[in-house]
Amino acid sequence: MSDHSGSRLPLYVQVEDALTARIASGALPAGCQLPSEESLVDEFNVSRTTIRTTIQNLIRLGLVEIRRGKGTFVARPKIIPELTELTGFVEDMQVLGRHATARVLAKKVVPASASVARQLALPCGTPVVQIHRVRLADGVPLSFDETYLPEALGRKVMADDLESEPIFSLLEQKYSTPLVEAEYQMEASIADPDVATALAVSVGSPIFLIERTSYSTNHQPVDYEKLHYRGDYIRFKTRLARGAPKRPTGA
Amino acid sequence: MSDHSGSRLPLYVQVEDALTARIASGALPAGCQLPSEESLVDEFNVSRTTIRTTIQNLIRLGLVEIRRGKGTFVARPKIIPELTELTGFVEDMQVLGRHATARVLAKKVVPASASVARQLALPCGTPVVQIHRVRLADGVPLSFDETYLPEALGRKVMADDLESEPIFSLLEQKYSTPLVEAEYQMEASIADPDVATALAVSVGSPIFLIERTSYSTNHQPVDYEKLHYRGDYIRFKTRLARGAPKRPTGA
Repeated sequence: MSDHSGSRLPLYVQVEDALTARIASGALPAGCQLPSEESLVDEFNVSRTTIRTTIQNLIRLGLVEIRRGKGTFVARPKIIPELTELTGFVEDMQVLGRHATARVLAKKVVPASASVARQLALPCGTPVVQIHRVRLADGVPLSFDETYLPEALGRKVMADDLESEPIFSLLEQKYSTPLVEAEYQMEASIADPDVATALAVSVGSPIFLIERTSYSTNHQPVDYEKLHYRGDYIRFKTRLARGAPKRPTGA
Repeated sequence: MSDHSGSRLPLYVQVEDALTARIASGALPAGCQLPSEESLVDEFNVSRTTIRTTIQNLIRLGLVEIRRGKGTFVARPKIIPELTELTGFVEDMQVLGRHATARVLAKKVVPASASVARQLALPCGTPVVQIHRVRLADGVPLSFDETYLPEALGRKVMADDLESEPIFSLLEQKYSTPLVEAEYQMEASIADPDVATALAVSVGSPIFLIERTSYSTNHQPVDYEKLHYRGDYIRFKTRLARGAPKRPTGA
């Protein structure tokens, strides 16, 4: 590979920069297969080891991905919602210029399990409304949402058209249930068969799981959700301030 | 199973409650194998289907976990740090009453890749200090941390005992580099061979990946980290307020 503009960068960084630029410009579009190792070796006149290092770095950057048995592909750009306020899926997608849709998989009354009961501050076994939806961004399934609502509120929500109406809008605008704040727990998980089917991904794919309990006035829990996001397609961003100094501090 | 105290809860909820109570009390300790399906069927006098439903629910709750080829085990309780302020690993563990230690795997000067350069606001290829550490909680590897520091600061930090000194302490207390805030990006990923080895987990295990750029005064980036947490062992919690009402709202 020729040294561009007197650069003394390692070769793999130069190749990485060239490929990153092609992906950014759309010359290598999302979802397309990357040129073969052989053709990259020829084009850049570098060793196969250099090409492999470059591709490993592009994988780490999330710019390309390996599909087993198929090859290396340009990754779909991640959707990066902010996690700084209590917002719903449709709001998050609107901010990012994505078109949000929903498919309802199930809605029914079930007895509250121990965890649902605890989150909604109800006795175990109390009837609650369970709603399963797939949320899509520009037509791609992005999140499988399990929603649990207290029975009275939930029976009203169940009767609405949940493919066109987000539940947050219904609560706030139709059912006079203002949302004040929510508790979030976030973890990395892998898709079990149900989640994999709902999201059209393989079992074992990474899932960003958010459990969220939303509260109305008087700290009344009104909506408990388990949001299973496709891990290969979403990342959340936030900004946190350093608190008052503690000793000893640590990172 | 006999109806306890006139309960009309579904049988699987009753069995779930009984097993949850045993796990909570330590009668079934973390890391121990769950009794076999057969013995649970006998003990609770319910069908095998009920036991299977119960166990599926306990898996969803994260209370038990399947180890392939070995059986079903009581899960180690998750470590749940708050994600509300910029804090370091040692601080997070101290708040939770866990003992934090560190193992240094590597420290060296490397040319900044495109992403490292962007995060530290340096030209591509600028020398930066890279530090790889495993962070342990009560002796269990919990996080594999890749840290990148600007060269001048990094060369000083490299010379310190990073198995006993957290980098945040060094920056704040020894090198007069106050930390003001940080940008976080969080995603669910799966362990590649390097991360799997560092954390002693299987390739493909869930990883909670935090990319964090910490800023000092004047919005000067001083520390870029990729923190690969064991997904089966950590969840992060936060609390977010509802913002000003927007129309249309959505969840």
